[in-house]
Amino acid sequence: MRATIIGAAGMLGAKLAQQIVNASNLNIEALTLQDVLLPKAPDTTIPCNCMRGSFTEPEQAKAIAAERPELIFHLAAIVSGEAEKDFEKGWAINLHGSLHLLEALRAQHLASGGSYRPKVIFTSSIAVFGGPFPDAIDDDFLAAPQTSYGAQKAMTELALADYSRKGFVDGVSLRMPTVVVRPGLPNAAASSFFSGIIREPLAGIEALLPVDDNVRHWFVSPRTATGFLLHAASLDSAKLAGRRSLNLPGVSCTVAEQIQALAGVAGEKCTALIRAQPDAAIIKIIAQWPERFDASKAEALGFVADANFEQIIRVYLEDDAPEAVRQATAKESTA
Amino acid sequence: MRATIIGAAGMLGAKLAQQIVNASNLNIEALTLQDVLLPKAPDTTIPCNCMRGSFTEPEQAKAIAAERPELIFHLAAIVSGEAEKDFEKGWAINLHGSLHLLEALRAQHLASGGSYRPKVIFTSSIAVFGGPFPDAIDDDFLAAPQTSYGAQKAMTELALADYSRKGFVDGVSLRMPTVVVRPGLPNAAASSFFSGIIREPLAGIEALLPVDDNVRHWFVSPRTATGFLLHAASLDSAKLAGRRSLNLPGVSCTVAEQIQALAGVAGEKCTALIRAQPDAAIIKIIAQWPERFDASKAEALGFVADANFEQIIRVYLEDDAPEAVRQATAKESTA
Repeated sequence: MRATIIGAAGMLGAKLAQQIVNASNLNIEALTLQDVLLPKAPDTTIPCNCMRGSFTEPEQAKAIAAERPELIFHLAAIVSGEAEKDFEKGWAINLHGSLHLLEALRAQHLASGGSYRPKVIFTSSIAVFGGPFPDAIDDDFLAAPQTSYGAQKAMTELALADYSRKGFVDGVSLRMPTVVVRPGLPNAAASSFFSGIIREPLAGIEALLPVDDNVRHWFVSPRTATGFLLHAASLDSAKLAGRRSLNLPGVSCTVAEQIQALAGVAGEKCTALIRAQPDAAIIKIIAQWPERFDASKAEALGFVADANFEQIIRVYLEDDAPEAVRQATAKESTA
Repeated sequence: MRATIIGAAGMLGAKLAQQIVNASNLNIEALTLQDVLLPKAPDTTIPCNCMRGSFTEPEQAKAIAAERPELIFHLAAIVSGEAEKDFEKGWAINLHGSLHLLEALRAQHLASGGSYRPKVIFTSSIAVFGGPFPDAIDDDFLAAPQTSYGAQKAMTELALADYSRKGFVDGVSLRMPTVVVRPGLPNAAASSFFSGIIREPLAGIEALLPVDDNVRHWFVSPRTATGFLLHAASLDSAKLAGRRSLNLPGVSCTVAEQIQALAGVAGEKCTALIRAQPDAAIIKIIAQWPERFDASKAEALGFVADANFEQIIRVYLEDDAPEAVRQATAKESTA
């Protein structure tokens, strides 16, 4: 079949592109990768169409839909911090871009006489939730976002569910836990330190911890996150029973437990590189974030979380860490 | 202050226009009434601007916002049944019309240097909910609509909440129970019979009951519904604590209890005019509707439901029934 990844130049998009061409069960015959920066084709003999363009333009959505891909991964987004700062850009891409895509797919559905009905996997987020929270957020808990990004994700979920109910597409929204350990450099996201306090010490660099170590949050590794996307591609949506937004399983742990896991993998010389430096702005943002979910519906549908935070660190070492970091850690842990 | 009612030619809009000019606590100095049909001005000496135009056009939203009303009631909508049949029209008015309005108000907010921040009362609906339901739907229950109308209402709620969080407007979404007894003729809505089985027998006309009499639903009288809108206008939104969608209180009763109340008001000769004629299509739609709510948050904020279904029937007789029906019922109940 033909598959398309929208937002393919991002961290998850690029990993997904490689995994999807390797996934023999999906039988991908052609792949389109779209992003605002030209995406890189994965290592494969499968024909890849790399498409560069703005997702705010209806013409871009029409170009994507005109290929009539049977499978579409929608990962395009302005992230939380940027959508908060640039209000118009956030709505233009996160909501209107998504609505243009749905309209373009509906037009192809109608033009095909109803036979074209693509599977659409939408990357949503736990940012659709806002406090006050129960102990564990279950699948019946309301979406009351406290950011524009969260509002735009929640609205796209609702539109995707309605276009699916009408039979124009076959959609599912995956509410991803916070993805760690992100490779590369720290960024301006409030969540950046969750990766930083693992990634930097492993590289022998000091990391600042802006919050108290009793802060609890909900995590997934990049490998498991892309695995979720692939699993959703072969999921029978009849099993969703009309509710097309899924809270995905994750690892709930505190910052102290993150640090303990890091000590287990790389020793206390490593964790000594984490230095507390409280940041009032980040403390305030993080206080509004959810801590724990009851993801039993997604689990029953076959979505499996990382085993624990130590596993999440090992995934980073295996998949993303620079070779020198990998070797230094292996040496330390056998020392 | 200046107030604007969008969707002012509808049943609730027209009632609200009259109530708002009578409400001395609001001190209305000028009123704008907008609808796709030219609204009628209420009986008042307060200057009224009656505006006719399509809410799908950004220019209409700009014209509304340009007057900088301090108080806006947004009642414009394509109803459930029509939004289900005419997919594009439903999205154009119920979602995009609302988004155009919010954008036009934000532009005025910015142009005013931040001083203009209107109160926006949005008429939402219990159609934002979809089953499976708990015994009573509380304020933490998710919005998983099973109609396009419900999806569009839920999405507008999210946008209104985000524009409010950012300080561009001061919005609240009121999830109205089903409004009965509607005056006039039956319409094509699946809920039409809830009014018909009261209104028609009171007028000495046979009414068809398309569902089993153990069907339970959630009701409000038109008088109480417009009272909710007025109450919201003077509500301090800080009390909403960031959650700007309210499940409003109502009367939960079965069709059998509706009929019993009618017998209490107008005698059994009247209820004998109700004839069971099951309609599979309506039975299927109604089966997906919510039955009962826990509206304790709205109650704590001062929203008060009708006392019972008998009270709802009496409101119809006092406010909307033709004079002949009113007199015939008064005679019957004292016979």
